Amino acid sequence: MSLDAVLTKIDDDLDASLDRLMGLLKLQSVSTDPAYKDEVNKAADWLVEDLKSLGVDASKRDTPMHPMVVGHVGNSGPHLLFYGHYDVQPVDPIELWDHDPFAPFIEDRDGKKVIRGRGTSDDKGQLMTFMEACRAWIAVHGELPCRITFLFEGEEETGSPSLVPFMEANADELKADLALICDTGMVAQGVPSIASQLRGMLKEEFVLHGPAMDLHSGHYGGPAVNPLKEISRIIASFHDDDGRVTIDGFYDDVIEIGDNLKAQWKTCGFDEAEYMQNAGLTESAGEKNYSILEQQWSRPTLEINGLWGGYQGAGSKTVIPADAHCKITCRLVGDMDPDKIRIALRKHVESQLRLGTSVTWDNDLEGAPASVMNTDRPEFEQARQALSNEWDREAVFVGMGGSIPIAGHFKTVLDMDAMLIGFASEDDRIHSPNEKYDVEAFHKGTRSWARVLAALT
Amino acid sequence: MSLDAVLTKIDDDLDASLDRLMGLLKLQSVSTDPAYKDEVNKAADWLVEDLKSLGVDASKRDTPMHPMVVGHVGNSGPHLLFYGHYDVQPVDPIELWDHDPFAPFIEDRDGKKVIRGRGTSDDKGQLMTFMEACRAWIAVHGELPCRITFLFEGEEETGSPSLVPFMEANADELKADLALICDTGMVAQGVPSIASQLRGMLKEEFVLHGPAMDLHSGHYGGPAVNPLKEISRIIASFHDDDGRVTIDGFYDDVIEIGDNLKAQWKTCGFDEAEYMQNAGLTESAGEKNYSILEQQWSRPTLEINGLWGGYQGAGSKTVIPADAHCKITCRLVGDMDPDKIRIALRKHVESQLRLGTSVTWDNDLEGAPASVMNTDRPEFEQARQALSNEWDREAVFVGMGGSIPIAGHFKTVLDMDAMLIGFASEDDRIHSPNEKYDVEAFHKGTRSWARVLAALT
Repeated sequence: MSLDAVLTKIDDDLDASLDRLMGLLKLQSVSTDPAYKDEVNKAADWLVEDLKSLGVDASKRDTPMHPMVVGHVGNSGPHLLFYGHYDVQPVDPIELWDHDPFAPFIEDRDGKKVIRGRGTSDDKGQLMTFMEACRAWIAVHGELPCRITFLFEGEEETGSPSLVPFMEANADELKADLALICDTGMVAQGVPSIASQLRGMLKEEFVLHGPAMDLHSGHYGGPAVNPLKEISRIIASFHDDDGRVTIDGFYDDVIEIGDNLKAQWKTCGFDEAEYMQNAGLTESAGEKNYSILEQQWSRPTLEINGLWGGYQGAGSKTVIPADAHCKITCRLVGDMDPDKIRIALRKHVESQLRLGTSVTWDNDLEGAPASVMNTDRPEFEQARQALSNEWDREAVFVGMGGSIPIAGHFKTVLDMDAMLIGFASEDDRIHSPNEKYDVEAFHKGTRSWARVLAALT
Repeated sequence: MSLDAVLTKIDDDLDASLDRLMGLLKLQSVSTDPAYKDEVNKAADWLVEDLKSLGVDASKRDTPMHPMVVGHVGNSGPHLLFYGHYDVQPVDPIELWDHDPFAPFIEDRDGKKVIRGRGTSDDKGQLMTFMEACRAWIAVHGELPCRITFLFEGEEETGSPSLVPFMEANADELKADLALICDTGMVAQGVPSIASQLRGMLKEEFVLHGPAMDLHSGHYGGPAVNPLKEISRIIASFHDDDGRVTIDGFYDDVIEIGDNLKAQWKTCGFDEAEYMQNAGLTESAGEKNYSILEQQWSRPTLEINGLWGGYQGAGSKTVIPADAHCKITCRLVGDMDPDKIRIALRKHVESQLRLGTSVTWDNDLEGAPASVMNTDRPEFEQARQALSNEWDREAVFVGMGGSIPIAGHFKTVLDMDAMLIGFASEDDRIHSPNEKYDVEAFHKGTRSWARVLAALT
């Protein structure tokens, strides 16, 4: 079947493809906040309809939280599973957006067209590159060159609580030869990238309890323990001056990367200066003696994602609050075990308690170990060639700082390898105000998937 | 003029007095939050009307923020100025209140009647003890035994920005022989107390800036500086392990209290165990080698009143925020100069910055030095006797952990001494959810003022 005709169809239909993407972007599918449950549901319905318009046998499947969307199409050729997520991050701080996060539009920025809105890059825009590649194949040839199972999740940004149970309950239906995942980025502008290793993640949240109630900082300032000071001291104790985590045993199961991989990473096109400049950073805060890429891809972290207590309103309030709150995520590498790190982290915090303070942990937060892809499979080299052809630049195997636990779940639950290909840029502001996705990424991403489908069949 | 008849009148009118207080408590006069501006204004109007009902020549006086209420009554006898504030603290965290903070009511708690609601103890209930004492005097004798100027402020809980300019502009009108202030508490249950020293206060607020925008903690965790970790480290650096503030020069102008005062404080009736228990504290967090009373009354503090950054909503968000925020108050003692401490505090914070972080200060926050009252004036001993008679217990001169900058302003702007008498209890939960004021404090407080007026004339 001709690939060129498919690529031409993708070029010709770009405006219509973008229009369809806008329809999905408008839905406020914030999965972490129960207030948006209906909108998440609407996004699932939207995808079912879009799949049906491709002739896919698609349905919405309820879970205890947000629905899965599953679809099947084709009867011959290799069987691929394509995964994407249709939920998005919360939009706060909303006041830092230049526009309504859910009123997407195309902007011409210094001659480069970008799609603006929450979820453009993470992950609706990326998910739709694959959908639109399939649409073009079907429009040109009446069918796809292979058998495809679609799996779209609505809980990725809130830790995927239903994913593993759903995969376990539907293992026979979901099992394919290889999973394709489109939720990653390119290591540098114009450098097509296949993720070969991902960091794992551990989430924690705790409340530090001090006085029995909020106190007046005049009447009680001095004798009363201040949870804001205590939580600051605890947080400050997590790292030493060299950026290393001080928790006992934290690095026990970290695997130092080999010289070979180090050398590959040095020439993969990653631009340290651009990466830092995109985020407004002037110097690295990570572990001493590791390059920025090593810090991002191969070293574990402990980050504070939320910290609060006391009065935050206008003016002042002379209060010593009863409690202080902290949200933490750790990125894990090598053989680090989330359960073991959780225990070590809690032990560390509890060893720091003093002056009658106590701690309460959120026991509903998940963890997932790091993943290393099976790059020896022939599909990896086939896809790498296809991407190189589209982008006119050698595609590279890269690490990823983010965590996409589903790659690990495909392996452990379905014994299925995964290949992660994505087209996001470092400057896409995912999880931040003013998220965007380059029209070029969307367009060439769609063309890339058309080429990958041809290469794998 | 007979005092007994006045006291009997107060007893007989208690219910009506409480009803009037309820009218003032219902007004949501939160001064620090601009959303309540109208309610603050209504409370001022309410006081003007209440003063007029006593035959006082009263008026509301506009300021750039919230109005002052000024009233004058009487032509002979010593000239006293009575000061109170009609604004209240914000009510958050509202979810910790057992009832609507602005729907006050009387509750029977283990046989003890208490008035529940925001401002009951700080300061509307206290303010009204003096008003009701005047009402009884006038009802019985047709006039007061002295000349009184009333000054009610609506900005006390937000740092009194208009107070000094107003005093300066109306110095001739406000100057009296002695100021009476009712905004303090009793050192122990049933122990009448005259405050002889108050801590001063310095307010600060800063934003710590890190990355140019919120970042994804997967893509940037490691290389990116995290303002939540950095602000924690800065806050942790404010104190050493002995609870001492580490800021350079912080203790330079602290005056150690003499053995004589130390001995007085030891026998003043303050119950350390009860004070700690009321707040749910098990051990003191203040400076080592100072008693709890010394920590509270004679030692400076640096407290964090608010701390926030990153994601605080339901679920998790893998974000490294661009900024972190911190609200600070220092309590000052001895000759500590707020301006000097402000400079030292800022210098300390700025010396802690690293990894490309920067700090922005709020430059609109005020400070006031500590105050020591002129207890050699005969009125102090006269009032002490009057209070001892009412409470059937020797009244004592005590320190106060809180800051009531107006005492200092009366001295510096109007060259007028002040005497602070109040009836609040440690367990009144002022500035906290479920604030209350004992009906006994209100009732005997009113009787106390009737006695003090008699004693001073």
